[in-house]
Amino acid sequence: MKNNPHRMITLGSLTLMTPFLMNVTGMKAKAAKKPNIVFFLVDDYGWTDSEVAYDGHPYPNHQRFHTPNMARMAQMGVRFSHAYASPVSTPTRTSMMTGMNAVHSHITNWTSMAKDEPSDAVGGTNGAMTYDQIAASTGMDRPEWNYNGICPVAFQKDSAELKLNHLQYATPMVQFLRDAGYYTIHVGKAHWAAAGTPGASPLNMGFVVNIAGTSAGLPKSYLSEENYGNTPEKWNLSAVQNLYEYYGSGVFLTEAITREALKTLDFPVSHKQPFYLYLSHFATHTPIQKDKRFFSRFKKMGQDDGQSKYASMVEGVDKSLGDVLDYLKAHNLTDNTIIIFMADNGGNADVKSKGGIPHTQNAPLREGKGSCYEGGIRVPMSVYWPGKTQAGRIIDAPIMPEDLFPTLLEMAGIKKYETVQPIDGRSIVNLLQGKESNWQRDVIFHYPHQWKPDYRVEVDFLSTIIRNDWKLVYVMKERRLELYNLKEDIGETHDLSVSMPAKVKELAKALGDRLRLWKASMPTDRTTGKVVPMPDEL
Amino acid sequence: MKNNPHRMITLGSLTLMTPFLMNVTGMKAKAAKKPNIVFFLVDDYGWTDSEVAYDGHPYPNHQRFHTPNMARMAQMGVRFSHAYASPVSTPTRTSMMTGMNAVHSHITNWTSMAKDEPSDAVGGTNGAMTYDQIAASTGMDRPEWNYNGICPVAFQKDSAELKLNHLQYATPMVQFLRDAGYYTIHVGKAHWAAAGTPGASPLNMGFVVNIAGTSAGLPKSYLSEENYGNTPEKWNLSAVQNLYEYYGSGVFLTEAITREALKTLDFPVSHKQPFYLYLSHFATHTPIQKDKRFFSRFKKMGQDDGQSKYASMVEGVDKSLGDVLDYLKAHNLTDNTIIIFMADNGGNADVKSKGGIPHTQNAPLREGKGSCYEGGIRVPMSVYWPGKTQAGRIIDAPIMPEDLFPTLLEMAGIKKYETVQPIDGRSIVNLLQGKESNWQRDVIFHYPHQWKPDYRVEVDFLSTIIRNDWKLVYVMKERRLELYNLKEDIGETHDLSVSMPAKVKELAKALGDRLRLWKASMPTDRTTGKVVPMPDEL
Repeated sequence: MKNNPHRMITLGSLTLMTPFLMNVTGMKAKAAKKPNIVFFLVDDYGWTDSEVAYDGHPYPNHQRFHTPNMARMAQMGVRFSHAYASPVSTPTRTSMMTGMNAVHSHITNWTSMAKDEPSDAVGGTNGAMTYDQIAASTGMDRPEWNYNGICPVAFQKDSAELKLNHLQYATPMVQFLRDAGYYTIHVGKAHWAAAGTPGASPLNMGFVVNIAGTSAGLPKSYLSEENYGNTPEKWNLSAVQNLYEYYGSGVFLTEAITREALKTLDFPVSHKQPFYLYLSHFATHTPIQKDKRFFSRFKKMGQDDGQSKYASMVEGVDKSLGDVLDYLKAHNLTDNTIIIFMADNGGNADVKSKGGIPHTQNAPLREGKGSCYEGGIRVPMSVYWPGKTQAGRIIDAPIMPEDLFPTLLEMAGIKKYETVQPIDGRSIVNLLQGKESNWQRDVIFHYPHQWKPDYRVEVDFLSTIIRNDWKLVYVMKERRLELYNLKEDIGETHDLSVSMPAKVKELAKALGDRLRLWKASMPTDRTTGKVVPMPDEL
Repeated sequence: MKNNPHRMITLGSLTLMTPFLMNVTGMKAKAAKKPNIVFFLVDDYGWTDSEVAYDGHPYPNHQRFHTPNMARMAQMGVRFSHAYASPVSTPTRTSMMTGMNAVHSHITNWTSMAKDEPSDAVGGTNGAMTYDQIAASTGMDRPEWNYNGICPVAFQKDSAELKLNHLQYATPMVQFLRDAGYYTIHVGKAHWAAAGTPGASPLNMGFVVNIAGTSAGLPKSYLSEENYGNTPEKWNLSAVQNLYEYYGSGVFLTEAITREALKTLDFPVSHKQPFYLYLSHFATHTPIQKDKRFFSRFKKMGQDDGQSKYASMVEGVDKSLGDVLDYLKAHNLTDNTIIIFMADNGGNADVKSKGGIPHTQNAPLREGKGSCYEGGIRVPMSVYWPGKTQAGRIIDAPIMPEDLFPTLLEMAGIKKYETVQPIDGRSIVNLLQGKESNWQRDVIFHYPHQWKPDYRVEVDFLSTIIRNDWKLVYVMKERRLELYNLKEDIGETHDLSVSMPAKVKELAKALGDRLRLWKASMPTDRTTGKVVPMPDEL
């Protein structure tokens, strides 16, 4: 389904799309008992933020963390050295849910908590400068994009009544799981769509249970002492919902989310129904707060306060993963449960509260969240598929979030499904089983936005294409291209664009073709009023 | 199980109770297909607040409302002329969930949103006077009572860690439904326990799905324009959760709750699993706000603004009931679904925003919410049980909230169950079927509290016992007894206590015996420091 021609795009108005009928090939003829699936997603979590070396090479950063369960998971299953995600949260999540590349869905940035608030530069909050002032200072204006996120297709009529726009209609992946008999559970962060739109509710996305999932992209607080943000002093739309029982209890958010997730498994397990548990942790997103169960370990190692807080949050996530693995084992489910462990984007390297030296937290990777350099998009990922994955194997093939759409459905034995949206993702089922010898995949990410009010050339208005070992970065504001060889230079420190013009031309053409095909959202030059050129039109 | 001797009570400390093994008799030998159950609960909703005359006699109040679906429901099933509930919300809900009379569970008032805040007089909020000032002015001090509400027994150990007290441990009724295979859905108001205790979460009470249920007893707002209270200006712990998709949509809370409830039915219906839907509306609790779909009808009738707002909220509930009935019909479920329609206490007659003349809103009944006079405790109730209830029949036998515990379990075919708490309720299954010819039941309510900061003799510190046509009211603050004949004097306007001392003595003894047996929470006289005497010790 690569390069499936799109039928229509949705930008600023309502559009209906004709259904795309999928036929997944390569399935076994006889359907086996449906496997359970646990999707364990970590937020803003860097590639080196654990004991696990995802490419098999140890880096110094690994020593800052204590993650025995992530190591256990990596040993149980396969891990990816080149699992890629969008530079920010929502596009990864919407690509998983729609099967569309973020360029194609035009959901290229994170969705605001409230409706009709593009998150560019000011993030929908009131900063010191208005968005207009910021855009004037950089000379770059945000593109049109689908800042209200996904709208589940079932709501087309209702949504029209609500005059919704700037959203991508889609048939959500989880709906197919539910329709195939899965008990579909959402616990934690959702962040597919803005409040006031149907996509804000996981129950409209195919989930039958929702705990805490809203339009918010972060938790107002991890602390039960602050009621997870539900106090008069702290409250805003990111206050975490559904956790009243833990208020004041001393239970850190990561732990509360885990307990709720395991609680919800009791019903499908006792009824012998297959389940899909989407355990989507708020951790390790900001605010960086101390998980007091683990903090002192890292202080004793000599890490600073911010580093120790962050590492304690990571260990909280690790403990959560261990609790899930233990639950599955205790209920004799390990042999029939697929577990996917992944992060939604790279670690945040632009926040003082994490301690250490900003912009180095993902070393050896360059930069972090928000950026199209490797620190922003290369993420930890491991998959355990009983009887299918070879324990401890490392897969070097590059994969993208949209690949999870067809992959999960194929894993669940769902062979035919109709979607209103085109599917850009490719199933990685054969990759996982070691049966794919000729995987070729252009990795494309496109961030036509300014992330924060202060412009940063290493983060804002970047596009990238990765083909084999080569990576092109298009710095849109400066209208220039950079070239890196990731195999030789994982830190993207040596720009080879001057010395290798043919490779630059090849990749610029490939990237430009794809951006044109998908009618990419492009930023505008304020002085000319024109969108910036494609990378092969410089 | 009437007068089941209690084994132990819980007041101010943790106690373990030995299990009570129940054997429900009168069940059919052969178990039929499990019926679905819809429990449709309305909040603060008066006995005459509809077109339906629950005792068969029309009163003028009925003409103020437009409730075709409540009429439809009453015609489908049986209705009760003497269904009783506690004067305030929580005790009714906890009695249904535990099977215990509120006197016995010592949950005699509503639970605060936050932990360890008795709601007496000040309601946990900061009024003009402190609680101490109020108690000093009346000379009456609140009793010890279980102001943290129910704690599901499974949490005994965890709760001990949290140092919880002032709660009643119980095995929740819904847990038995879930364990018997029911898909148990909670939508709307919960209000069984304070935040920071396990009982605050419906998921700990036996529900597998929870939408909007918290420790709050009211919605901060019914208006989507105010995000149901989730705005910086309005927010407090009663802001309604889980409804992000409706923010700003124009959908009134009652409608949103209904849509969510019907959405959750899709999974059990498509999987042919029996379901228990507890649709617990926030309406018609304060704040009294206009449901603009229906408001103008009542203005045109000449009702004032407050009356029209209230009637519009009632019609919103009626429309919700109709939507549920229609859903069941459309899915061919009507013939296998039991529907129970009920209110949790009498209509609020002490709030200016409802318009009309305060303290008359439940006419011909005296007073309203908070009071042990009929306006506070007699509630609308109708039950449709396909193949069992005779359409349109009126049942005059008196029933109490705790009766619903054994009733629902018997309806569901659950014959044996163990509870840590004694069950005071009696199954009304035979009553519903017209098979009970000799129903005798003392109705007991006891409100040893001051409801609001301003003392009102017709509401505060009252106890009552109803035996056949006779009703005794114990005005604890004034240490006096009143006697009414409800058959002759539904409005409780003629106190017969002076002319009928023998009847007074009989009922005072019966009430006193019960209060002693259940170790009732009694208020204290501040001047003497002693609890007020029992009604038969005056």
